[in-house]
Amino acid sequence: MEAFLNPKSVLLVGVTRQTGVGSYNNLEVMRRYGYEGPIYVVHPSVSEILGHRTYRSVAEVPQVPELAVISVGRDRVLPVVQDGIRKGIRNFVVISQGFADADAEGRALQDSLVELCRQNGARILGPNTMGILNAFDGFSTAFIDIARDPSPPPLTLVAQSGVLQVGIESFTGRLGKAIDIGNGCDIHFVDALRYCADDPQTEIIVLHMEGMRDGRTFVEVAASIATRKPIVVLKTGRSHAGAQAALSHTGSLVGEDAVFDAAFQKAGLLRVRSMVELRAVSKALLHFRPMEGPNLAVLTATGACGIMSADACEDFGLQLAPFPDKARSLLENPKISWHRLGNPVDLWPLGMVGGSFPDVLEKAAETVLAHEDTHAVLAIFPRMASPLHDNLRFEEVLRRVQEKNVSRKPFACWVYGDGAREEAERLDRIPGVACFPGIDEAVMGLAATYRFRQRSRRGASKVVPEQRAADIGPAVGAKAQGPEGVSSTAPSPQEKNQAQGGVLLGEAALEWLRRYGIPTAPSLVTTDPQEAARWAQEAGFPVVLKVVSPQWVHKSDMGGVVTGIQDAQALRRAFDDLVRRFRTASPRGELTGLQVQKHLSGWEMLFGIKRDPQFGPVLVAGMGGIYAEVFQDVRRALAPVSMEEAREMIMSLRLYPLLRGVRGQPPAHLDALVDALVHLSDLAWDHPEVAELDINPLFASADGCCAVDCRIVIG
Amino acid sequence: MEAFLNPKSVLLVGVTRQTGVGSYNNLEVMRRYGYEGPIYVVHPSVSEILGHRTYRSVAEVPQVPELAVISVGRDRVLPVVQDGIRKGIRNFVVISQGFADADAEGRALQDSLVELCRQNGARILGPNTMGILNAFDGFSTAFIDIARDPSPPPLTLVAQSGVLQVGIESFTGRLGKAIDIGNGCDIHFVDALRYCADDPQTEIIVLHMEGMRDGRTFVEVAASIATRKPIVVLKTGRSHAGAQAALSHTGSLVGEDAVFDAAFQKAGLLRVRSMVELRAVSKALLHFRPMEGPNLAVLTATGACGIMSADACEDFGLQLAPFPDKARSLLENPKISWHRLGNPVDLWPLGMVGGSFPDVLEKAAETVLAHEDTHAVLAIFPRMASPLHDNLRFEEVLRRVQEKNVSRKPFACWVYGDGAREEAERLDRIPGVACFPGIDEAVMGLAATYRFRQRSRRGASKVVPEQRAADIGPAVGAKAQGPEGVSSTAPSPQEKNQAQGGVLLGEAALEWLRRYGIPTAPSLVTTDPQEAARWAQEAGFPVVLKVVSPQWVHKSDMGGVVTGIQDAQALRRAFDDLVRRFRTASPRGELTGLQVQKHLSGWEMLFGIKRDPQFGPVLVAGMGGIYAEVFQDVRRALAPVSMEEAREMIMSLRLYPLLRGVRGQPPAHLDALVDALVHLSDLAWDHPEVAELDINPLFASADGCCAVDCRIVIG
Repeated sequence: MEAFLNPKSVLLVGVTRQTGVGSYNNLEVMRRYGYEGPIYVVHPSVSEILGHRTYRSVAEVPQVPELAVISVGRDRVLPVVQDGIRKGIRNFVVISQGFADADAEGRALQDSLVELCRQNGARILGPNTMGILNAFDGFSTAFIDIARDPSPPPLTLVAQSGVLQVGIESFTGRLGKAIDIGNGCDIHFVDALRYCADDPQTEIIVLHMEGMRDGRTFVEVAASIATRKPIVVLKTGRSHAGAQAALSHTGSLVGEDAVFDAAFQKAGLLRVRSMVELRAVSKALLHFRPMEGPNLAVLTATGACGIMSADACEDFGLQLAPFPDKARSLLENPKISWHRLGNPVDLWPLGMVGGSFPDVLEKAAETVLAHEDTHAVLAIFPRMASPLHDNLRFEEVLRRVQEKNVSRKPFACWVYGDGAREEAERLDRIPGVACFPGIDEAVMGLAATYRFRQRSRRGASKVVPEQRAADIGPAVGAKAQGPEGVSSTAPSPQEKNQAQGGVLLGEAALEWLRRYGIPTAPSLVTTDPQEAARWAQEAGFPVVLKVVSPQWVHKSDMGGVVTGIQDAQALRRAFDDLVRRFRTASPRGELTGLQVQKHLSGWEMLFGIKRDPQFGPVLVAGMGGIYAEVFQDVRRALAPVSMEEAREMIMSLRLYPLLRGVRGQPPAHLDALVDALVHLSDLAWDHPEVAELDINPLFASADGCCAVDCRIVIG
Repeated sequence: MEAFLNPKSVLLVGVTRQTGVGSYNNLEVMRRYGYEGPIYVVHPSVSEILGHRTYRSVAEVPQVPELAVISVGRDRVLPVVQDGIRKGIRNFVVISQGFADADAEGRALQDSLVELCRQNGARILGPNTMGILNAFDGFSTAFIDIARDPSPPPLTLVAQSGVLQVGIESFTGRLGKAIDIGNGCDIHFVDALRYCADDPQTEIIVLHMEGMRDGRTFVEVAASIATRKPIVVLKTGRSHAGAQAALSHTGSLVGEDAVFDAAFQKAGLLRVRSMVELRAVSKALLHFRPMEGPNLAVLTATGACGIMSADACEDFGLQLAPFPDKARSLLENPKISWHRLGNPVDLWPLGMVGGSFPDVLEKAAETVLAHEDTHAVLAIFPRMASPLHDNLRFEEVLRRVQEKNVSRKPFACWVYGDGAREEAERLDRIPGVACFPGIDEAVMGLAATYRFRQRSRRGASKVVPEQRAADIGPAVGAKAQGPEGVSSTAPSPQEKNQAQGGVLLGEAALEWLRRYGIPTAPSLVTTDPQEAARWAQEAGFPVVLKVVSPQWVHKSDMGGVVTGIQDAQALRRAFDDLVRRFRTASPRGELTGLQVQKHLSGWEMLFGIKRDPQFGPVLVAGMGGIYAEVFQDVRRALAPVSMEEAREMIMSLRLYPLLRGVRGQPPAHLDALVDALVHLSDLAWDHPEVAELDINPLFASADGCCAVDCRIVIG
């Protein structure tokens, strides 16, 4: 990637002969941005552009440039890259549009491009990209003339669009480096992350993501970085309409948004959901050391903003710090003995009687910062343009406060009033201070630093199972069989053949669970009512009877289940009824048999596996039963899940308070649920051929848990 | 209120003798802001301030000023107001703090102040207020020198804090008038709204609310305005911590946030939840005519922003407009036949091959605006500071577009890039155009105009029942008995006496429901097991048996319910068991009897009434049963609810898809549920003595609905 971000020499193909206003000439922009290395320009007709001599072809260029930047029409891209490869160039930025972002022909062109480069060991950034922006070294491939940051911040952006480079102010505020992967035909998030991991000029990574490729590798690489360097991600195409728009934009594979959430969680990323939040979080990470705890002290010129701050804390996951006694005795003023002191600290009355609001702010800030239970400060105060209020100056005050703030607790400000903008610019230059456009933004930003600190402390999640990693290798995600050492716990080929139409049902599915140590309800599948009755007699009534047929996957909806059968006679009656009902409804259907099962009770839950094309096996745990669909009370996590992750999944369910026991009922057996989920994770990991698996219901009770029904989709 | 907003003459008491920087002299500020009427200043020691002669006392003032503005210490406020009243003054702004916002003594002082004014027909704004800002007439009572808007916008702010006047830019962006009601001891939201209703300079009303008084009147008055003039409300103290902070700030009564939601819904208000949203919505209402429908056309310089726009539409309740065929044929360019046209319209490639991005934007804007299925446009484009991009100018283009936009569909812009700020200021001056700081804000703003249009069309909700209004009068909310004409449907005094400890249970409570036409499960309360058995034999098994005791309100939790009783023998056994269980658990408890009831089935729902101290009776409908508490699937509405409102409540429940019928079950009887809810609304309205009422469960089935258990709290 270094050759892309700071190349020793550059070849430009497709530069317009026009220069100046409205020309979008990337030679001109590259020079203005500060690139001082040799630039070779290929142009078919003119002999010089902006004083640069041009060459008629790539072959004529006297040197082998380290990087080629191509912006010809899409039909001419492939020949130009071929010329470049022949010349010995191995790094290409393809600015041109019209590839996978456009039509089938474009997609085919893009595939050829990738093929050509793979064969020749070359790398491509793009197509459909603005390419690189590197304010440290003064290199830009853009056709838009963006101002170079004179003191570049350690923030690197990896985006799927150039708009985040052009509109810096609206997204991350500032930029040190940017990589626009565009269609990402070759260089993708993973390559960019690996570059960021080792780059000393990158301390904060911001991703703008529309879609994903090699999701598993992405998660692995991101997880290995995210505890050291915060990775912020703005994933767009969240909505249905947005995902459709994404498909037409960069031709990205846009997955289910909830799966992205699970992937980001696994990788330890900080997800932001809007440009507003991206701006706030980027600024906070650039200005602050992370908060060491969730406690915020609010110093405010007005009580109304104290209330808003308290609301914001609750919205974004912080809390109000306890108000130190020392601050009380220091700030109290007998002239206004009625004034109530607490956090948020309403400073204005103290300033009015004490003579100077900035002085009171200084005293309060020092005191709360010195207190061990304060993890950050939010100061809220006005700055007016009127000369009458020239006393409301805060720069010197905050410089003094920060000199004493030795552990560098974050000091966020919201300055309001018609002189606020200039004041905020001044205060932003004080180390460890950052001004935000509002209270919400300040708290969003602070909260993100705390989330980062929590994740750093917890360490990276396991992305491959600890002991199993060696056995399985990188084959996960591919549709391969597990290797011998693992498949010993797996069903035999014959059993797999029971999968009819690629679906395993009833006993065949439950058998897989049993082999992984997941408790299942005892049951028997048979076509013989006598055998069913004998089994029930032994197992004990009451029992349940269910139709097993590949055509009746949703058997409850078809009337294919009879519950609460109390004796052998009732069982035989139900058996005949169900067979008759099946034959009537599905005369050509295939009846595997009827399943007789112990009647169980407990909380109806749902466990499952879904294999995502990007991220591989995703575990699902949640509420089962008839309310499942409307309340969608489920948590997802990328496999493998640890005991701790499994516990978190279950404890964060909305129904969890019920599992802890209500109305005199004993609590459900949490450890049993955790175990089952971890075992299911093993199954998912070992069997890449399992595309979907649903355990529904899984009954959770005080004694443990028990899978009652299961469906496995293979392939 | 006119005397407050534009007084003919003003008395100032409490002006500091200091002037200039840091003096917070409200005489100085008043003059600078442009007030030209006579100002009389009372000061105990100096003879002039800023060239104004002063008077030693109010009595000495040679005229009766129309308005007095008082900022003396809290202990001197009452005497000053007394002097003013003696002088003949009837309008007071009390700036001073330390009243209900502070301690018990302050609250007592405030009460005395109110009493004094009531007795003398005087009105008070405050205390703890910045008072009035009126940019039209150049009047301000503030001690902060705020710049006067040279062309005041028709937006009036009613706030509970001066910070929204001082920090205009961060809240509503601009202000025509502002009323800070502070502690609101006398003049409150209702007075301010009535002023706004008739004020020709007010077209948009923005409320900043921490708490409420006279909530019912507020809802009535607001509902009568909100279809003509949009009323935006920022209610703070949403969170638990925020509500606590609110109590200490203005001493407001802070209610349950969900009840405020119901009240705002009834009144037709546009609630915003953050400063970001307030800024966006205020700007949209100031610049746009409301959207006539939900369809947004997005014109964008980059596909990435098209995706973000689609996400924002889904987040805030708009949708992407269909892309007109005419636009396709007009915009298509054969040079880039691969370019896919649709909404969002990705314009950049067209600009690159067509020669001029602004020209392409103009053509696209005209075409989509002319289409009847487009209700607004969001245009997204860059403006750079670099001279190389001086071609990217949009002012003339958008002026021409707007000349043809005869029906004035809203035209929102998001301009990005390092020249965006100045460009946005220029474009904001074009009628019907508004620039926002980001995509989310633009869509939030547009969506609010559409919400306002929907509410205007629907008309105001009924705030008092149509036919009953005359009977009931304004007594609602007071703890009075309903008048004779109504109480005919109410239980007799004896029945009311059944309320033990103020709680009606079992049959006594169900009887109230029956009288209001709400179906209830047949049942009998008895202490005699034989009688219970006879009743069950007649009514038909299976039955349910329940303990009725004021000590066992949550009887399920106590094991006080036996379900599924199949015959007389089982009933007698259950009877004895329950009596024994009660005697053991509550040896001194009072056992009213056991209730025997038909065993019913259906969807478990919960209907209820809660009397809010501010807003009176609130209807509640939602999911019942064991999951109710964790999923909180309830809707609230202020009584009276119409059939339409009741239907909306039920149809917006998350469990509603289940009520429509699943897994082969027939749909629940929606009309029966609607009827029951409307009847419950009547009960709530007729019986102000009902503080709480819970029907739980209410079974909903295909045949209708049936209340099984009810609890009524009186008083």
